[in-house]
Amino acid sequence: MSRLIEHTIQNVKPLDQNAMSLAQARQDTLTKPTGSLGKLEELSIHLAGIQGRSNPQISQKAIVIMVADHGVVAEGTSAYPQEVTAQMVLNFVRGGAAINVISRQIGARVVVVDIGISADIESFPNVVHRKVASGTQNMCRGPAMTLVQAEHAIETGIETISSEISRGLDIVGTGDMGIGNTTASSAICAVMTGKTAAEVTGRGTGLDDKQLQHKVEIINRALLVNKPEAIKPLEVLAKVGGLEIGGLAGVMLGAASHRLPVMIDGFISGAAALIVAGLCPRCKDYLIAAHASLEPGHKYMLENLGVEPLMNLNMRLGEGTGAALGIFLAETSCRLLSEMATFAEAGVSNKGN
Amino acid sequence: MSRLIEHTIQNVKPLDQNAMSLAQARQDTLTKPTGSLGKLEELSIHLAGIQGRSNPQISQKAIVIMVADHGVVAEGTSAYPQEVTAQMVLNFVRGGAAINVISRQIGARVVVVDIGISADIESFPNVVHRKVASGTQNMCRGPAMTLVQAEHAIETGIETISSEISRGLDIVGTGDMGIGNTTASSAICAVMTGKTAAEVTGRGTGLDDKQLQHKVEIINRALLVNKPEAIKPLEVLAKVGGLEIGGLAGVMLGAASHRLPVMIDGFISGAAALIVAGLCPRCKDYLIAAHASLEPGHKYMLENLGVEPLMNLNMRLGEGTGAALGIFLAETSCRLLSEMATFAEAGVSNKGN
Repeated sequence: MSRLIEHTIQNVKPLDQNAMSLAQARQDTLTKPTGSLGKLEELSIHLAGIQGRSNPQISQKAIVIMVADHGVVAEGTSAYPQEVTAQMVLNFVRGGAAINVISRQIGARVVVVDIGISADIESFPNVVHRKVASGTQNMCRGPAMTLVQAEHAIETGIETISSEISRGLDIVGTGDMGIGNTTASSAICAVMTGKTAAEVTGRGTGLDDKQLQHKVEIINRALLVNKPEAIKPLEVLAKVGGLEIGGLAGVMLGAASHRLPVMIDGFISGAAALIVAGLCPRCKDYLIAAHASLEPGHKYMLENLGVEPLMNLNMRLGEGTGAALGIFLAETSCRLLSEMATFAEAGVSNKGN
Repeated sequence: MSRLIEHTIQNVKPLDQNAMSLAQARQDTLTKPTGSLGKLEELSIHLAGIQGRSNPQISQKAIVIMVADHGVVAEGTSAYPQEVTAQMVLNFVRGGAAINVISRQIGARVVVVDIGISADIESFPNVVHRKVASGTQNMCRGPAMTLVQAEHAIETGIETISSEISRGLDIVGTGDMGIGNTTASSAICAVMTGKTAAEVTGRGTGLDDKQLQHKVEIINRALLVNKPEAIKPLEVLAKVGGLEIGGLAGVMLGAASHRLPVMIDGFISGAAALIVAGLCPRCKDYLIAAHASLEPGHKYMLENLGVEPLMNLNMRLGEGTGAALGIFLAETSCRLLSEMATFAEAGVSNKGN
């Protein structure tokens, strides 16, 4: 593995248990029955452990959207044509996509990275141009990318998040765009969780029954041709993954190495998380699952990662939309921990007093 | 029933189907796969039907917290002393409670109403002083309140929300405070859903096993003494309810009569919603359930009301905290509907094009 990736993995440290204990102790003094804020209390304590401070803060926020194309679309696995990938980048840049709307509401900046779009979009402004390749190869006929490209994609993610952290950042949400990327993510999910393609594969942007069956067959063919093994996550990424999935894996790894919390979105982010967890199991401690996607494989991903989603809104859009909503709740949890009055401050009688 | 209540019930009209059709049609033109925003799409369409316009807006927001005391606490059903009710009002006024923190984050005003606190808090500033009685009577020994008081509580809620609407309001979240009010709400839940007290009663602010068993026995005694019947919702409120529960029922009824969406909080709001649904079934169309409370009876309440919660965060605090989070999502859903670009505007190829 490349020196940057090795180095980043080594820099991922355990959660700060002391900060978590202090945060828990403060929670227990606040004017509410102990535990009555449920997951919001747990989340604030988790964030304390990640950020390494008893009073975690979520003020500066970013959604990093990794965008790439997939050679496997030649097999007809998507309801939308490949040109939509680049068209949606323009939509992101102009602020018209769902992720733009939610990001404005929560006060997050949107960072759009071309890590592997097949079209030439060099002229698009406000895009981070870091193309590793012009899309992947068709994974039904061989590996989606080379091992070097897979590493390059992860490095791009690490460098992207380092750059964003230097601009000031308290949390990152992972987003994706790439026609065909639920096919790659389903393949990764099957390999890494040991489930069958049929169990983990869903309708993506809206396939009918027959198209879904075809998608499962295509994934099975890709698995047969490439024979990826779960114990070799970098190879899994190269053989049946995608450039944006590698990029998001790098974002997660880099964020964890900087003690930055990562709000993971849905199915594509989940695939990236499985790759990262394979490369660096400790990284899992830095991931927070925003929501349960409608894609059937997502629950197996989250089980495998050992994380529980905050919300279940039947969403399946990607772009980081679920992550952005999760970031709102992360901010809520920190504000509650820091702004609520204690029983003593408020002069409220505590239980049993 | 009083003229105000009758009149308000008559003013609750059906959802605006035309506005809902137009909102659905717009959703289907936005740059995303159809239905991919899941519950957020459904919510925007529901809000269109409530507000009676194809482009619903959530800008001005309020949490109305109805506060009252419960005579049944004399039986030892709560983990906290009764004085906490008034102490928490002071905490609300000073901005130190959980609901204050979340309301600041979402930009909602907090309206605190003394509808039946046993202590005299006339001197507290920024409280709406509308005491119907100084707490309820002990429902183990007779009705918690008279029928006239129950009506008065509902009228107070209607008048409170009318006054808030005149200040400008796009959505209201229902909140509550009142030591002992999960006992009353459990009793209402049992009557209105046909479940047993043991099935619907939970630990409230934190009872142990033995205390929980005692609480169930107390509720059973209150039901035996008062014999409330589900077909007489006003009597149910009077016999085993609470003044804040009546107040919230009035808020819901008044809001529905003004086409104002109501984000209902947890268990106490659910009890109020059951009373309202009994008085005016059409009101249910104006209620949105923010979250699933940890109190075991809450799921039966929501089933009975025919509503599904947006979130499940294991919260059980009350105050309107869950409702405030739900209002955030309601705003998100409206912003998405109005701010997202259409396929045509963005020049994005649609499915099958």
